[in-house]
Amino acid sequence: MKTADNQVSAKTKLLDAALTVIRSKGYAATTVDELCAEAGVTKGAFFHHFKTKEDLAVSAAQYWSTVTNQIFESAPYQNLSDPLDRLLGYVAFRKELLQGTLPEVTCLVGTMVQETYDSNSAIRQACHQSIFGHSSDVAKEIEAAKKLYAPKASWTPMSLALHVQAVIQGAFILAKSDQNAEVAAESFDHLERYIRSLFNR
Amino acid sequence: MKTADNQVSAKTKLLDAALTVIRSKGYAATTVDELCAEAGVTKGAFFHHFKTKEDLAVSAAQYWSTVTNQIFESAPYQNLSDPLDRLLGYVAFRKELLQGTLPEVTCLVGTMVQETYDSNSAIRQACHQSIFGHSSDVAKEIEAAKKLYAPKASWTPMSLALHVQAVIQGAFILAKSDQNAEVAAESFDHLERYIRSLFNR
Repeated sequence: MKTADNQVSAKTKLLDAALTVIRSKGYAATTVDELCAEAGVTKGAFFHHFKTKEDLAVSAAQYWSTVTNQIFESAPYQNLSDPLDRLLGYVAFRKELLQGTLPEVTCLVGTMVQETYDSNSAIRQACHQSIFGHSSDVAKEIEAAKKLYAPKASWTPMSLALHVQAVIQGAFILAKSDQNAEVAAESFDHLERYIRSLFNR
Repeated sequence: MKTADNQVSAKTKLLDAALTVIRSKGYAATTVDELCAEAGVTKGAFFHHFKTKEDLAVSAAQYWSTVTNQIFESAPYQNLSDPLDRLLGYVAFRKELLQGTLPEVTCLVGTMVQETYDSNSAIRQACHQSIFGHSSDVAKEIEAAKKLYAPKASWTPMSLALHVQAVIQGAFILAKSDQNAEVAAESFDHLERYIRSLFNR
């Protein structure tokens, strides 16, 4: 009989496996067998924790938010006192995170929603929650920076936060097609230049 | 016995079916049977024209470039005499093209490369050719506008053209997750504002 610790561990191994395999080949091409092999767990363990592959994908999107939120919350730019410095620090940090292989540095939820948006509403909603939830966090910094440096500007903080995510998601697509993250880094440079222009910095 | 005309027609029907089905559910989830059903052709006709689903996907990426290039080449903004007006006209035209259902208005090659980049180099290369080829066309307008209005700027025309594509591709992902193209339109507004700031217009 399994212990509770082992069960938690197998579940986490499967979620980590989902991040690895789905970011490499997409959601539809990923099989439960591959996820089990990557996680080093049995198919019995898989179905103990998840009803279906879809069920795992929904949990993986939530897990993705948890894992990435921890990365952003503990990033050095959070210690800066000025909200515009923190916003520019966020963009610079996203550029730093481009170091690694493309399956390691690209986005689980952007990858999943690209192919499932019209065919699987549970996965789409989980991806939406992750992307728009993170955008809301970034929008709070933008709102604080806007109050200080561009109080009369016509754009909303959330629209700029979502534009930042659009650039990041699209830059990943260009990097994937080019098999090189450099094109993404250059797009982030344009984004930084845009943000500086909006705040006259 | 089929005539040559019928064969051309079946091939085009299959390519059009690929645009519809793959943009709805992604490449891996699409089956040859679904493509035949959507095209209204037999499986025999499919394998007369394409060796495999991969072979069709590569042809569909090339077909996508042909079809979309015709749309851009005949768009009204091409008649504007100033290259910056044409560039801003291109962005405004991309915003107009957001009218329709998401499978109708989003990008075949961005969708395919998102999931196949690490597992299928033939499809990845065909998508790369489409995205970077179109970016080269946009870069020519940017180069002409830069010579006139921002000759000393440090960014390159191709990097800005690729940034434009990044915004468009990423805006599609946000629209898919939100099931609404409005978020994409707002991101295009930010892109337009950025381009105007680069050229002081």
